[in-house]
Amino acid sequence: MTIDEIVRLVDGRLQGDGSHEVHDVASLERAGPDDLTFAEGARGLAKAGASRAGCILVPDGVSLPQLTTVAVPRPKLSFIRIADVLRPKPATTPGIHPSTVVDPQANLAEDVCAGPQVVIERGVTVGPGTRLGAGVFLGEGVALGSQCLLYPKVTVYPGARIGNRVVLHAGVVVGSDGFGYVFAEGRQHKFPQLGGVIIEDDVEIGSNSTIDRGSLGTTVIGTGTKIDNLVQVAHNVRIGRHCLIAAQTGISGSVEIGDYVVLGGQVGVADNVRIEDNVTVGAQAGIPSGKALRKGMTYWGTPARPLPEFKKMYAHLSHLPSFVEKIGRLERRLAK
Amino acid sequence: MTIDEIVRLVDGRLQGDGSHEVHDVASLERAGPDDLTFAEGARGLAKAGASRAGCILVPDGVSLPQLTTVAVPRPKLSFIRIADVLRPKPATTPGIHPSTVVDPQANLAEDVCAGPQVVIERGVTVGPGTRLGAGVFLGEGVALGSQCLLYPKVTVYPGARIGNRVVLHAGVVVGSDGFGYVFAEGRQHKFPQLGGVIIEDDVEIGSNSTIDRGSLGTTVIGTGTKIDNLVQVAHNVRIGRHCLIAAQTGISGSVEIGDYVVLGGQVGVADNVRIEDNVTVGAQAGIPSGKALRKGMTYWGTPARPLPEFKKMYAHLSHLPSFVEKIGRLERRLAK
Amino acid sequence: MTIDEIVRLVDGRLQGDGSHEVHDVASLERAGPDDLTFAEGARGLAKAGASRAGCILVPDGVSLPQLTTVAVPRPKLSFIRIADVLRPKPATTPGIHPSTVVDPQANLAEDVCAGPQVVIERGVTVGPGTRLGAGVFLGEGVALGSQCLLYPKVTVYPGARIGNRVVLHAGVVVGSDGFGYVFAEGRQHKFPQLGGVIIEDDVEIGSNSTIDRGSLGTTVIGTGTKIDNLVQVAHNVRIGRHCLIAAQTGISGSVEIGDYVVLGGQVGVADNVRIEDNVTVGAQAGIPSGKALRKGMTYWGTPARPLPEFKKMYAHLSHLPSFVEKIGRLERRLAK
Repeated sequence: MTIDEIVRLVDGRLQGDGSHEVHDVASLERAGPDDLTFAEGARGLAKAGASRAGCILVPDGVSLPQLTTVAVPRPKLSFIRIADVLRPKPATTPGIHPSTVVDPQANLAEDVCAGPQVVIERGVTVGPGTRLGAGVFLGEGVALGSQCLLYPKVTVYPGARIGNRVVLHAGVVVGSDGFGYVFAEGRQHKFPQLGGVIIEDDVEIGSNSTIDRGSLGTTVIGTGTKIDNLVQVAHNVRIGRHCLIAAQTGISGSVEIGDYVVLGGQVGVADNVRIEDNVTVGAQAGIPSGKALRKGMTYWGTPARPLPEFKKMYAHLSHLPSFVEKIGRLERRLAK
Repeated sequence: MTIDEIVRLVDGRLQGDGSHEVHDVASLERAGPDDLTFAEGARGLAKAGASRAGCILVPDGVSLPQLTTVAVPRPKLSFIRIADVLRPKPATTPGIHPSTVVDPQANLAEDVCAGPQVVIERGVTVGPGTRLGAGVFLGEGVALGSQCLLYPKVTVYPGARIGNRVVLHAGVVVGSDGFGYVFAEGRQHKFPQLGGVIIEDDVEIGSNSTIDRGSLGTTVIGTGTKIDNLVQVAHNVRIGRHCLIAAQTGISGSVEIGDYVVLGGQVGVADNVRIEDNVTVGAQAGIPSGKALRKGMTYWGTPARPLPEFKKMYAHLSHLPSFVEKIGRLERRLAK
Repeated sequence: MTIDEIVRLVDGRLQGDGSHEVHDVASLERAGPDDLTFAEGARGLAKAGASRAGCILVPDGVSLPQLTTVAVPRPKLSFIRIADVLRPKPATTPGIHPSTVVDPQANLAEDVCAGPQVVIERGVTVGPGTRLGAGVFLGEGVALGSQCLLYPKVTVYPGARIGNRVVLHAGVVVGSDGFGYVFAEGRQHKFPQLGGVIIEDDVEIGSNSTIDRGSLGTTVIGTGTKIDNLVQVAHNVRIGRHCLIAAQTGISGSVEIGDYVVLGGQVGVADNVRIEDNVTVGAQAGIPSGKALRKGMTYWGTPARPLPEFKKMYAHLSHLPSFVEKIGRLERRLAK
């Protein structure tokens, strides 16, 4: 791909030789003369001057002497687009592997690919272009859309509904029973876990994450939401569209999360919390049962507070030793 | 099922038409004229008035005009019992799937069901009525009781002993090596992980949770204890009977937990902690190494404290800004 | 094995009858006349006097009347060595199970063992003596060294490179995509996850842990590092040699960790943190984005601080109620 072609693809402004070709993408540190890379932010641009990259995407208005650059409004975003073109998609073995067990009453589109030892139960439907890795399990009545990619050993419990272009990484479990018990007569009685689970289009879920079905209602993960590894989503949770949920975060039963919400890693959300649109929650924060987090605000800490409040309390905490000294001085002066 | 039959089943007090039939259970919000539901607590009962349910279980002494209700001491508990009757258990394909690999020296009861690609090694015993999902692995010498349900891709390491009516959700690992090393000569030397693991009757363990074997002793999970998803139980841990352990909680080596203990989500219990009967620990709490939590008490925070103490400290924390102001005022007054 | 042989093996000093034989290892509490055990520390040695063990390894200079002891500098370490000899390694079924699917362009050493339903894709290489448990998946081009042990249901994504004597427990995922998105035009755009992952020699990783590949760079886990269950290692993380990382800890993107680092359980390390050699981080600590933890120091708390500082702040916190009282007294005195 010539740099002139790149300029056209991302509608950028060239500095340098547009006829030069790049064949791959790479990081700023590793890129060589055949590679395209990008630089953003003070740190990135400071390092860019020493790069050996064949072409660097830079923010509008930036120039790097002696280097071939293409200026665009958002270099990282343009980099994603070019990488999609330059890097061929990994080839998939077509067809259904002979060791795969497909129920005669399952309904697979013609070009579905299934690796070895996949199990597809009765009443399952799988849309066109969907690929199933080795050992994937689709329980009775699962509906799986088109162009999905399920990595090895994903388990989908019976009845789950999954949209189009959904990516589930290895070991993901969708639709397991929620954790609900009533204590009586000296033991725990299991509350019925009969509800559904819906994963909408363009969702991606990281390795070994677990998504429980609803108890009587439905667990929903909205369009475009991305979930990292080892995340727990409990029964009846409703997550909106285009959210980001980082690794090891846990979301308890009946939580409602709006659109464009960002949860950091290891966040704990207790049951019946409501998180409005565009909220950001910092890593390891804990949100107590029944709380409401307000639209567009950022929260941190356990129990989570709005960021300015958290920062103020935290600053005071850091100054505790000086407060203690001040109290001592006051006491001594009064004693005189 | 007529409502008269329901009244008899749960020994309730009817208001309305006992000859009406219900065919399913549903949540208060979703229940229609053919459904049974329940209402409890101020919030539930407030919503119940607008319900379209064919029958509502309510607490003794409550009446809802114009609606068919059955009054019982504990509506949610009675609901569980009726749901068990109304909802047929999902059918299981009987027998052993031909792709399953069973060692000739394994001992399976006649009516054991095993899905595709199950692996059962030498010396394994499986009791009557137990069902094994696709891809379950039972290592050498595992003893598994009757009426158990193992969902797809459960791994049980060699030698583990599992009781009756145990439910293990997808991806659960039972009996992996504990995490014990001795540092010498510039590297970690692995301590032998030779012990056993015992899961007693009526235990349920959520998706992708991990239970390590003992190092020299035995890891034990007591009768009726319920464990949520992504929970870690380390080597030599002993958990008592009828406990509840919520998602993503981690229990370190050699911890002892009594009966009827409740641990919230994302709790961390360090090694050699002792938790007595009927203790409750709030979500995200951290219990330092070697601590003892006293019978019947509730703990919260990191490091965990008894709830009244935690609340007091937390209240003071919230008032830190006002203390700082007070100190300032005192200083200014003294300066005059 | 006679006790005289043990004395020679660990270069110890015998007290008692060297001709006595022991046949197994056991804990101090459980060891009988045929067992070897060890005792260390005040608590261990206090219990040792009542042991029925056939032989007890004790620290140099310690003697236990009436008992057969072997004194060594580090009893637990010597115990590990003897256990390695006394306990036979579990036998492995040799060869490749007929249900295993091996691509003709994979390259397996002659004595590789593979359990049922293993999948080995094109271009994979596996070194001598390596054993693959049931249902292991090795993606295209994976390089796996010699004498490795992969337990059932491990998933290795294409291209990962794994050294010699590596142990991966059940459900481990190596090489899944990192969690990187750029928000634009109302949705998340996935950043390319094209990098590699290298697991060096003698690494052990616990059940259901997840190790992401690099985005453009490489995720590296250094020689001899041991990782517990349910740990998350994100893209581009570099972990040094001989580290210990306890259960449920999460390490975010581009973190750099030196050698001999110890992270407690449920620690959260935000992105771009740098942890120098020999650092110890206490359980549940949280390390904010971009921080550097200094060589040889111990850190605790969220946000993590050096231990002395943390202890001081924590002590002040505990005394908050008394500070509040003092302020009240000062105010009352001034008011007079």
